[in-house]
Amino acid sequence: MPAADDRLSRYARLAVQVGLNLQPGQILGVNALVEHAPLARAIAREAYAAGARYVDVYYGDQHVRRAHIASAADADLGFSPPWQVGRYDELGRVGGALIAISGNPEPELYADLDGERVGKARMREVAEASLRLTDGLVNWAIVAYPNEGWATTVFGGPDVERLWEAVGHAVRLDTADPVAAWREHIARLKERAAVLNERRFDHLRYRGPGTDLTIGLHAESEWQAASDVSNGIEHVANMPTEEVFTTPDSRRVDGTVRSTLPLQIQGNIVRDLEIRFENGRAVEVHAASAEDVMRTHMATDEGAARLGEVALVDGHSAVGETGLVFYDTLFDENAASHIALGAPILQAVPWASELEPEARVAQGVNNSSIHTDFMIGSNELEVDGLTASGETVPILRNGDWLL
Amino acid sequence: MPAADDRLSRYARLAVQVGLNLQPGQILGVNALVEHAPLARAIAREAYAAGARYVDVYYGDQHVRRAHIASAADADLGFSPPWQVGRYDELGRVGGALIAISGNPEPELYADLDGERVGKARMREVAEASLRLTDGLVNWAIVAYPNEGWATTVFGGPDVERLWEAVGHAVRLDTADPVAAWREHIARLKERAAVLNERRFDHLRYRGPGTDLTIGLHAESEWQAASDVSNGIEHVANMPTEEVFTTPDSRRVDGTVRSTLPLQIQGNIVRDLEIRFENGRAVEVHAASAEDVMRTHMATDEGAARLGEVALVDGHSAVGETGLVFYDTLFDENAASHIALGAPILQAVPWASELEPEARVAQGVNNSSIHTDFMIGSNELEVDGLTASGETVPILRNGDWLL
Repeated sequence: MPAADDRLSRYARLAVQVGLNLQPGQILGVNALVEHAPLARAIAREAYAAGARYVDVYYGDQHVRRAHIASAADADLGFSPPWQVGRYDELGRVGGALIAISGNPEPELYADLDGERVGKARMREVAEASLRLTDGLVNWAIVAYPNEGWATTVFGGPDVERLWEAVGHAVRLDTADPVAAWREHIARLKERAAVLNERRFDHLRYRGPGTDLTIGLHAESEWQAASDVSNGIEHVANMPTEEVFTTPDSRRVDGTVRSTLPLQIQGNIVRDLEIRFENGRAVEVHAASAEDVMRTHMATDEGAARLGEVALVDGHSAVGETGLVFYDTLFDENAASHIALGAPILQAVPWASELEPEARVAQGVNNSSIHTDFMIGSNELEVDGLTASGETVPILRNGDWLL
Repeated sequence: MPAADDRLSRYARLAVQVGLNLQPGQILGVNALVEHAPLARAIAREAYAAGARYVDVYYGDQHVRRAHIASAADADLGFSPPWQVGRYDELGRVGGALIAISGNPEPELYADLDGERVGKARMREVAEASLRLTDGLVNWAIVAYPNEGWATTVFGGPDVERLWEAVGHAVRLDTADPVAAWREHIARLKERAAVLNERRFDHLRYRGPGTDLTIGLHAESEWQAASDVSNGIEHVANMPTEEVFTTPDSRRVDGTVRSTLPLQIQGNIVRDLEIRFENGRAVEVHAASAEDVMRTHMATDEGAARLGEVALVDGHSAVGETGLVFYDTLFDENAASHIALGAPILQAVPWASELEPEARVAQGVNNSSIHTDFMIGSNELEVDGLTASGETVPILRNGDWLL
């Protein structure tokens, strides 16, 4: 087997065994772009080897989407094909699994289109069906496929081999025993989450260039890390993952925050994003590029302008060690502390999944059809935890984890 | 616009305007392989330009299917994802349109797999849902995308440009006004069908090397050609199309027939297919390659071993003028007379669509989830029409149309 094929197989196997922890008899949905076919195929092979009942690959095509955004009638923008909703619902019904492939070959393909139309073209009902699945209904994972377009975005030239090396390092494929390396890594992150949970901070305070932000936390929320349990199956949803994260109180977010890394979203790259929050709601939004796309995105629904996640990452992650900007949230969010607009991590708040969305929102657990992370961490960012009694505990300084 | 892009756009426009006759507000389903992405994208653009409400491209992947055939549990072979059935049903419900892209980049990808498993892996429920659509429910069409693998199969090397020239000639893209050329061509074929309909032959007789076959015709069946009317929309289902065709009496087929061109089916190429029919049923099947695949295919259901279509093509078609074997039924069946196992052309028998399948079958109109054409025509094949009164009328001699 050629070395490249062997690497692809080992990566796919890691995704199936550690990312998904796919169980014999499961139906696996794979979401990929046409440009991701080699990895989708390798995942299919490894999934059948692991006893999958059936592997259903759905290939998206950004160029077909571009034609829709450019030319569809206003009223048809963002039409959600019911069969795509049906696919997600059925995967949930039968206890299937879901894996998505990241790594955008043309991350700015829609940059010249009308930003408002780009935002409106989002398939909301499909997105909501997907969120239902990933809220604990199925074991799921995201991995990435290095490709020429993505490499060109990262390096300025199509150096796919160099991107493979970076991705391989970030997902620990370059270790002697990746499964063992992941087991150890998961334990380390879970320990970090446990320490945060002991502290029971009332809120976090972020200070850095362009950032002065406080984020309230729920008294009952749990910091989570590395692996989730969905449908009774422990899985690692993100490969890589370097974060500890929880659901903040979406009513208690105040101040300004400046992104530290570009955000790839809907065929655009949002650069130098700045948001000002008041009582949890984003009231000012600026960006050096794709500001209109971001504004429309944040107007998707009531919760799209509020936070659903807060995540802490130190400066010494495997992703950070590559020294790269990936222009891909799966990687960049694991090199830097980040926050997410939109849907919460439902499992992080014990009582949240028992409430209807409206009741949850009233209690400060956000609800939205979007979940969009953006990176705010850097070695210059200081993060403190503040207890209800007023004690201030440094968490991050100079990229170092102090707890 | 580069010449190749312009050609792709013109081909896509011809497919949308003449093949589908897409109406403003229709939802269009596109069935393609990942390797067909450039044409799928061009079709999406032209469809939106023609007023499509939404274009849904479903990309199949033969390598993913191969993993399924090679490794799925016996009981799961041929699993039909309900969301794929749902996609077809929904397209029918909303009066959508459907276009499929042909041109197999790896036509023998499953040749080394167990032939019985290949045959069993067919998604029967998806196929049946597709047949419901193309039985008059939606305007549909098939076109083909020249690609390296297909060119290599045809020429022994990846001469895509040469294949484009042949395909362009076959679909009249090389004429000054392809739409006008098609209008004229459709009228000529319809005239040929009208002449056959006047004759009201009781049965056809085929004689040639390895072939001595009679095929009974229904008293009420209509010969059809070129364009269909589905959901009130006139469309050209096959581009190219050179045939006049109808539904035979599936009880009255007797004798032996030898295929004159290879048949590409389910990742295999069936060569030198020979079938003996008795009272309409295939009782002997031989082939020089993929015989087991063909046998399993013909055992799909009761009707898979009986004929559903008979089609006549002379030796002077635009496809035939290329002098090529395309290893693709869309083209090869339009260079040679052919017959099809399985599902009938329901619209060709006036009373057929009013009967339940079982009642139709009792009247000699076949029923099956397969519809598999194979080519039996050549310049050596003699085709006669025989009237109920015993008159014998030569139809084809030396590739010439004599009526």
